[in-house]
Amino acid sequence: MAAPNSATNLELVDDCDRFPYFQTNPEAYERYMNTLYAFQVPPTDPDSPPPTVGLVLPRVAEVLRGLPDWEIDDDALTLTLTGGTDAASRSAIVAQMAAAMRKTGHFQVLAKWRNELYPVYATASAPTTTNHLFDIERAASPLFGIVTYGVHLTGFVRDPDAPHGLKIWVPRRARAKTYGSMLDNTVAGGVATGEEPFETLVREAAEEASLPEPLIRERATAVGTVSYFYIREERAGGETGLMQPECQYAYDIELPPDVVPKPNDDEVEGFYLWTVNEIKAALSRREFKPNCAIVMLDFFVRQGILTIENEPDYVQIVARLHRMIDLPKVR
Amino acid sequence: MAAPNSATNLELVDDCDRFPYFQTNPEAYERYMNTLYAFQVPPTDPDSPPPTVGLVLPRVAEVLRGLPDWEIDDDALTLTLTGGTDAASRSAIVAQMAAAMRKTGHFQVLAKWRNELYPVYATASAPTTTNHLFDIERAASPLFGIVTYGVHLTGFVRDPDAPHGLKIWVPRRARAKTYGSMLDNTVAGGVATGEEPFETLVREAAEEASLPEPLIRERATAVGTVSYFYIREERAGGETGLMQPECQYAYDIELPPDVVPKPNDDEVEGFYLWTVNEIKAALSRREFKPNCAIVMLDFFVRQGILTIENEPDYVQIVARLHRMIDLPKVR
Repeated sequence: MAAPNSATNLELVDDCDRFPYFQTNPEAYERYMNTLYAFQVPPTDPDSPPPTVGLVLPRVAEVLRGLPDWEIDDDALTLTLTGGTDAASRSAIVAQMAAAMRKTGHFQVLAKWRNELYPVYATASAPTTTNHLFDIERAASPLFGIVTYGVHLTGFVRDPDAPHGLKIWVPRRARAKTYGSMLDNTVAGGVATGEEPFETLVREAAEEASLPEPLIRERATAVGTVSYFYIREERAGGETGLMQPECQYAYDIELPPDVVPKPNDDEVEGFYLWTVNEIKAALSRREFKPNCAIVMLDFFVRQGILTIENEPDYVQIVARLHRMIDLPKVR
Repeated sequence: MAAPNSATNLELVDDCDRFPYFQTNPEAYERYMNTLYAFQVPPTDPDSPPPTVGLVLPRVAEVLRGLPDWEIDDDALTLTLTGGTDAASRSAIVAQMAAAMRKTGHFQVLAKWRNELYPVYATASAPTTTNHLFDIERAASPLFGIVTYGVHLTGFVRDPDAPHGLKIWVPRRARAKTYGSMLDNTVAGGVATGEEPFETLVREAAEEASLPEPLIRERATAVGTVSYFYIREERAGGETGLMQPECQYAYDIELPPDVVPKPNDDEVEGFYLWTVNEIKAALSRREFKPNCAIVMLDFFVRQGILTIENEPDYVQIVARLHRMIDLPKVR
């Protein structure tokens, strides 16, 4: 194993996509699945299995034991939201529960309360209105191991003299934030309930990088998703070991040389315009926030900077940057 | 379900990525895994589990029962190549076995004998020299459900007047080939033993499309992989139901308007320069060879033609275009 300060690209993927795969490591996979409670909602069609919308640590599930609207089955390892009949009524129950949990002060992740709702879908790979089951306070989503969605933008400038013909705008996160002082993607943010991903991008680009709305609308291009199954560590803030599967909508933008991103809120300390080689060095020093590192790897793959000829783990890396994030059915 | 002549993009993915996923359909997954024999090679390190290099139908495994160098365990559902100590000696045993199977005329897929070797790796997601276990005749690889590798190139021409600003060169396969008269990607071919993927691309681009070597070397860009788990159907030729997991190295090339691809062998009938809308219509008519359809979807994703805002199955499609193709460990 490489030293922490000289990570391979595959080790950067391992840092972010941390939940084991059934097909390659069934023992580790089963260890998790024999411990975690599947957060379920009764299916609309009683003949279908209930959708699993989250994976919950026992110490979190325990808090809901005996409450009305919730049912815990310790044999099946399920935590079921039995109350509510539609998105509005389920959301109200979840909001009340989250507020009560916050009041106890028992869970550190709830200290960073966001007053922002994240949507929860019956099928994570189909985040559509018809699949929308309820909303949950953003800070509470990792407690329930719910799949969340975000946007990440890579802003680059063509430069024929630079290696690979381009340089990339890289922000450093503010010291007081989670993953303090780590490097990030040009723009990034979570997709809240009721917002289209591209509109999240437009908003965050203005807030985090002062990039004007018309520029984003005209030039930013959707280029796919980066999806992975993170498990929270200390630097994420709050409890460790919480499940955090995520899907990031990825965008590229070629910026004109005279456009310079500038922080417009307190989230970013400043921006660097870096060559691919400078970024590779920072990646191997593990200076990037884990999910930002792999969004950068995805950019490198799409730009032909990483290839099967220069990256021995290319095939595995490309697959793992695009993990199927539908949560396991419980047998 | 849509009529066969108006496939959704997700249905096109389903047509190609046909093996069930454990996490979303454990019952169907287990049905396969309780039937197929895992093709294994004894591990170099006796403490490691043996790598699974293929998934084999019982009627194929049966042929090897009782032969020296092979061991069948009907309880563990394993078929083990016990003979050979290195790539050369294992390859010799496999070659002899394949030649003998060909002689019996029992397996139709062997009628299309290619005299071309495909490499087999201990870990499909790490196709490196150190993981190279043996080679197998290309025509025999689906009999053993071995992961194979190929290259697919999308050649496009910028055209500011066309929708999305580009047109794409689409060949129609010769009528006599497998998937006869179906549409294909601009260039495609299998990566044989000892060949680097980019060199396969250079060779196939000259053979199939008369695209000159310097043009490919200068302009073709690696853009990732498209990987999936196909199960053979009638139109693939030969036995149906054989397992065929594949990893395609994807490349894009922007062609100058005056470069016109021309068939240079008998594999292609002719080339069309089509708009995105013409291609979408042909896709929905299921006119593309299944794996070529999903390589085209990957191009559409990377070019911002498909987005989360216009494709409800976007998240699932992007993940499934990049399936982890390491074969399951057998418990």
